[in-house]
Amino acid sequence: MSQDQYFIAVDWGSTRLRAFLCKHSLNANIELVARNNGPGVTKVSDSFEKTLFDCIEPWTTEYGRLPIYLAGQIGSSIGWRETEYLPCPISPEQVASKCLIFEELGHEISILPGLSCLLPNQHYDLMRGEELQVLGWLNQRPENRKGQHLICLPGTHTKWVFVNNGQIIMFKTAMTGELYDILVNHSILIQNKTASFDQAAFDQGAKFTLQSEAGSFVHGLFSVRSKQLFSQITGQQSTSYLSGLLIGSDVRAAINANEWNVDSLDKIALIGAPHLSKSFARVLELEGYKTEICKLTQTTLAGFSSVFRATESSLITTS
Amino acid sequence: MSQDQYFIAVDWGSTRLRAFLCKHSLNANIELVARNNGPGVTKVSDSFEKTLFDCIEPWTTEYGRLPIYLAGQIGSSIGWRETEYLPCPISPEQVASKCLIFEELGHEISILPGLSCLLPNQHYDLMRGEELQVLGWLNQRPENRKGQHLICLPGTHTKWVFVNNGQIIMFKTAMTGELYDILVNHSILIQNKTASFDQAAFDQGAKFTLQSEAGSFVHGLFSVRSKQLFSQITGQQSTSYLSGLLIGSDVRAAINANEWNVDSLDKIALIGAPHLSKSFARVLELEGYKTEICKLTQTTLAGFSSVFRATESSLITTS
Repeated sequence: MSQDQYFIAVDWGSTRLRAFLCKHSLNANIELVARNNGPGVTKVSDSFEKTLFDCIEPWTTEYGRLPIYLAGQIGSSIGWRETEYLPCPISPEQVASKCLIFEELGHEISILPGLSCLLPNQHYDLMRGEELQVLGWLNQRPENRKGQHLICLPGTHTKWVFVNNGQIIMFKTAMTGELYDILVNHSILIQNKTASFDQAAFDQGAKFTLQSEAGSFVHGLFSVRSKQLFSQITGQQSTSYLSGLLIGSDVRAAINANEWNVDSLDKIALIGAPHLSKSFARVLELEGYKTEICKLTQTTLAGFSSVFRATESSLITTS
Repeated sequence: MSQDQYFIAVDWGSTRLRAFLCKHSLNANIELVARNNGPGVTKVSDSFEKTLFDCIEPWTTEYGRLPIYLAGQIGSSIGWRETEYLPCPISPEQVASKCLIFEELGHEISILPGLSCLLPNQHYDLMRGEELQVLGWLNQRPENRKGQHLICLPGTHTKWVFVNNGQIIMFKTAMTGELYDILVNHSILIQNKTASFDQAAFDQGAKFTLQSEAGSFVHGLFSVRSKQLFSQITGQQSTSYLSGLLIGSDVRAAINANEWNVDSLDKIALIGAPHLSKSFARVLELEGYKTEICKLTQTTLAGFSSVFRATESSLITTS
C-alpha cells in the first residue's frame, strides 16, 4: 500500500451525478483532487457504465485502475445494480461492509446500500444517498460518535436522522422540498414564480406555522393565497412565505416528534445546500435551538472516506 | 305577483357552469324545472354574456324575462363583474341584500358577494360560491338556524363553516382536494393514477394521520411511498391511502381547531360531491363524530331560493 491512495467517489442521485477524485493519505486526511458532473439516474441516455466511465475518463487515463464508490439512487431499483435497505440501528462499519462490489472494465466498483428503519409508530422509513453525509458527519469528529445527536439533511426530501454513540438509530422523511416545488409550479397559490428570497416573508410563514394549532398544515396552506388577497404579503413575497410555512411545518414536526427529545440535545446539525441549511437553521433558532451548519461536499467526502477506510482495512485484514 | 314564480339560478365556478330553471311557489317550495351545463369562468371562450344566454336560451324563449342569480367565481376578479367579500359574522339576509344587480338583454342579473372572515389567529380567510350551500343549509330547517353548527363543504378547497343562531360566524379553508390532485399528478408518490377506490387503504391512511403526533403532515406524507416499498400497501391502493391521509389531516385539524368546540356539537353537516362527503363522514365517524350528509344540488337550490325570497321580499317592501 503506497502512502497516498486515490479513489473515485460518486454521489449519483436521481437528477445529478457528482464525481470526485479523492486522495487519501495514511494520516487519514482526505483531499479533493478533481471533480466532474454528469446526468442523474433518471436522465441517463446511454448505459450507466458508459455514463460513468465518460465522466471519470481523465482520471482513469492518468491514474489507471482506481476503486470507485457509488452512492445514491444508482443503487435503487431504477439504478444500475440494486442494493439492500439495511435496517437500523446500524453502525458506519456495518454499512460499509454491505457494499455491493463488482468489477467493470477492470475497476472495482462498490455501491453503497440504503437504510431503512421501523419507527415506534410501526411506520417504515427509508433513505438512499443521505446515509453518506451521516457517515461523513460521524467520521468528522470523535465527539460526534458519543451520545445522542439529531442531524437534519434538507433537500427534495428532508431527512431527520437520530444517532446515538456513533450508531444510526432511526430517521424520518419529510417531503418539504418536493411539496414546495409542486405547490409553486402547480397550485393556485403562486402567480409569481421567479421572486427573489424575502427574509421577512419567510419568517412570517414560519411563525404562522409554528404558532398554529396541531395538525394545521392543510388549513394553514391557504393563507399563502388569502394573505395576498388581503395585502398582508405581496405576490413577490409569496414563494418566500410558502417556503417559511413548509420549513416551519417540517421543523415543528421534528421538534414535536415522539422518537427523540430535542430539548436534551445541545445542537442540531444541518447538512444540505447552503440556502436550505440557512433557512432550516433560521426556523430552529426562532424556536430557541442551536444549530451547526456543515459543508455539504466536505461532509459527503468524509462519508466516502469513512467507507473507503472501512473497506480497505477489511481487505487488509482478510488478505 | 303570480302564484308561481320562475327564476334562473347559476352556480358558475372556475371549471363549470351549472344553470337551473327553478319554480318558486307561494308556499315557499322550490322546484327544479330544468338544468343545463356550460363552461366554467376559466374556460369561457366567448363573452360571459353570450355564454350565459346561450346556456339558458330555451328557458328565456319559453318564459321570457326571468330574474337570474349568479354565484361563484363569476363574481371574482377573473369573472364577469366583481363583487365584494363581505366580512363575517353575517346573516343570510345581509348576504342577499348585497347582490350586485345589473340589467343585461332586459334580464335582471344578481351576482352574489363572497365572504371573508378574520380568525382569532389574525389570519384572513375567504370564500366565493360555497356561501350558497351554507345559505341553503340554514334555509332548509328552522333548527339549523338555532344554536351552533359546523358545516363541512369538501371540494378542491374544503370549507369548514361555523354558524351560530343562523349567522355565519367564521370559516376555514383547507386545500385538501387540490393537494390530492397535484400530489397524484406531480409527485413521486403515485405511479398508478387510475386505481379504483379502496376503502381499507383509505382507512389505513386516515388512521395513520389521526394517530400521529402534532404537525406531522409533511412527515407522514412520505409513508405513501415507504408503505409501497415495504408492501404495506399496493400501487393500486396508493391513491386511496393518500386520500385517507389528506382527508384525515383535514378532519384532524378541524377537530383540533381553536375556533370552535366540536365536542359540543351534536353532528357535523357535510355538503359536497357524494364520494367526498362519504369519505369525510367516514373519517369523522372513525373519530366518533356524527354526521349529516346533505344533497348538493338540493342544498344549492335552497340557497338560491333563500336569496330569491330575500331579494323579492325586499323589492315588495320597497315598491
